[in-house]
Amino acid sequence: MPVKLQAPNAEDLLPVAGVRIGTARAHIKKPDRRDMMLMALDTGTRVAGVFTKNQFCAAPVLLCREFLGSGQAIRGLVVNTGYANAGTGEPGLRDARAVCKAAAELLDCQIEQILPFSTGVIIEPLPVARVTAGLPACQASLDAKGWRDAADAIMTTDTVAKGRSAQAKLGDATITITGIAKGAGMIHPNMATMLGFVATDALVSQPLLNEAVRRIADRSFNRATVDGDTSTNDSFILIATGQADMPEIGDAADPRFAAFIEAVVTVAEPLAQAMVRDGEGASKFISIVVEQGKTVDDCCKVAFAIAHSPLVKTAFFASDPNLGRILAAAGNAGVAIDPSQVTLYLDDVLVARNGGRDPSYREEDGQRIMQQDEITIRLQLGQGDATTTVWTCDFSYDYVKINADYRS
Amino acid sequence: MPVKLQAPNAEDLLPVAGVRIGTARAHIKKPDRRDMMLMALDTGTRVAGVFTKNQFCAAPVLLCREFLGSGQAIRGLVVNTGYANAGTGEPGLRDARAVCKAAAELLDCQIEQILPFSTGVIIEPLPVARVTAGLPACQASLDAKGWRDAADAIMTTDTVAKGRSAQAKLGDATITITGIAKGAGMIHPNMATMLGFVATDALVSQPLLNEAVRRIADRSFNRATVDGDTSTNDSFILIATGQADMPEIGDAADPRFAAFIEAVVTVAEPLAQAMVRDGEGASKFISIVVEQGKTVDDCCKVAFAIAHSPLVKTAFFASDPNLGRILAAAGNAGVAIDPSQVTLYLDDVLVARNGGRDPSYREEDGQRIMQQDEITIRLQLGQGDATTTVWTCDFSYDYVKINADYRS
Repeated sequence: MPVKLQAPNAEDLLPVAGVRIGTARAHIKKPDRRDMMLMALDTGTRVAGVFTKNQFCAAPVLLCREFLGSGQAIRGLVVNTGYANAGTGEPGLRDARAVCKAAAELLDCQIEQILPFSTGVIIEPLPVARVTAGLPACQASLDAKGWRDAADAIMTTDTVAKGRSAQAKLGDATITITGIAKGAGMIHPNMATMLGFVATDALVSQPLLNEAVRRIADRSFNRATVDGDTSTNDSFILIATGQADMPEIGDAADPRFAAFIEAVVTVAEPLAQAMVRDGEGASKFISIVVEQGKTVDDCCKVAFAIAHSPLVKTAFFASDPNLGRILAAAGNAGVAIDPSQVTLYLDDVLVARNGGRDPSYREEDGQRIMQQDEITIRLQLGQGDATTTVWTCDFSYDYVKINADYRS
Repeated sequence: MPVKLQAPNAEDLLPVAGVRIGTARAHIKKPDRRDMMLMALDTGTRVAGVFTKNQFCAAPVLLCREFLGSGQAIRGLVVNTGYANAGTGEPGLRDARAVCKAAAELLDCQIEQILPFSTGVIIEPLPVARVTAGLPACQASLDAKGWRDAADAIMTTDTVAKGRSAQAKLGDATITITGIAKGAGMIHPNMATMLGFVATDALVSQPLLNEAVRRIADRSFNRATVDGDTSTNDSFILIATGQADMPEIGDAADPRFAAFIEAVVTVAEPLAQAMVRDGEGASKFISIVVEQGKTVDDCCKVAFAIAHSPLVKTAFFASDPNLGRILAAAGNAGVAIDPSQVTLYLDDVLVARNGGRDPSYREEDGQRIMQQDEITIRLQLGQGDATTTVWTCDFSYDYVKINADYRS
């Protein structure tokens, strides 16, 4: 049951000049569902990405890093669901290359100009023949309006397709930004089994695009967590076709660069939040705001320690204001904390101060907030000025059910 | 449903000369259950302890650290269930002192000679009057044979009482070791909501007892994890009454010191494993052996990353050999791993080698092992000679149920 989340309408996802998308029902794992996509990029397009830090990263992630590092212009992306092609060793790399080769032939470019992405079950071999057999149908359906179908085609355990568009003024130019993402379980900072693709027609230099993708990830996908498991396949790709009528952004001091990042965040942040709202078994959307830390890193550690605590997550599932669990989880973050300086709010309700429950706190106030399906935990550390926000969800029977049954 | 775990018989828990235990039904939180204990220690007894590293450690933990540091001989331990007296600030410290004061009056000693322990719900104030009102009944029932009742009296969500005894030869002397523990949820390295009390009549110097308690914890309670949450109250106490007829062990090079540690481990290890077997909602007992690491610390990081992965734990609950999740979890441990050097076994079944599934692996073999209620995951990193073992359990519907309902 996603928390306040609806799939986008097709007309809400604006075409981005220079980007065409096709999808197919390739029967990769399940019959008769849209299960792969091909994205074709015009010449002149620049691409940047950030990827999982998991040591067992998948074969397609290894190829993406290699191909983005080769300096060749990227002309296409190919995504399959069903199989992650992770934990597959050398054969997995050969399989991913075979998919790129087939896509490169269709798009008339080099293998290294195709970025591959896979999501699904780990350790099992990629059924290459089924993926390549689906490519012609993808090519035949290439369309600038293909975003909505693509949002469907990349889903795994997602229950709602995720897509978002925005337009923004950069100087005199209006740029368009459209993105899609898939997530659901195993979502974590460093982006677990999360695929996100955001394209814009802005004209941005390659070095600044590389910088932008990191900064945007840190404000969106790296702040979202469902279960703390970081997947082998996480990838966030930022595509800039440069077809907007604007001078290139080539200087980080150009005010348009900051504006560009803000504009892309308006798409990436709701996509990241959508993954949490549609987290496996989620019944509540929880924002964890940690304030007054010494450093942002400290704040992140504390926020994620709370977000990943099974005891906190089950209490939220039960709407039980067992709020001491939040303090206990914060105390495990590996950050020096003086409990007497800590203040805890649940939405606007003051819960704890001076190392203990505040005398003003009444159980029924906590109970009232816990009944909501969107809740903000606000923890003030009393140490400094740093702050961060992390989004997570609760831990329900359905999480166990979904992940116990995932392969069947 | 504990995994292959039975409560000890009263006659299996051997008296330890110098230790008497009394219990009471003090109605601290629930009516008519044995819910607190008092342990009286003869003069000459030495006590050492290790405690939670949680920054929000409970008031009794703060007092234990203070009193053990004061150099005064410990004469008594008092344990209450129902309330953890954690996240309770200054009033919590006053409450814990009040309990110690009442116990010290009964045992005719100083406040600083009583160690307090609490376990139960966090942030709510300790009902001091109920605890102190229960102390006279505890005192009246003090008995060297009180171990079995004590094992009952310290339980919270435990379903089975946990106790163990052993005898060992140290030189010409035979020493007796008896211990009890409580655990269930929130169990983690650094010993979450875990209380363990092990007593022996061995004669060991205070510095070596301090050393021993750390080494024993690292081979028992610090290797057990249920849900990765480290509690505010974890304590492991090692008591040596010195009443055995033996020369003091005062030199770490004395071979009896190593033998002493081994002997206590024969009690502490099964107690730690018992907490996992009785983990909240546990249906499987899983040993995670990480071998060929560069350092023990690396091995621990990898083992706990696997043990804490909700995706791994739910797959074991479902008896689903979705074994790629084990590799993915290992890849998130923050340890540099070369996937091509890694080998994974499930019991004696070779699953993965050279970065991918081994050609010899058959799904039905994995499936057969996953049906068992005791399973060993063996991961070889191919980097060195270090090794460690960690025990954990699966993640079931019942874990969510127990923790969603805990306070009601």
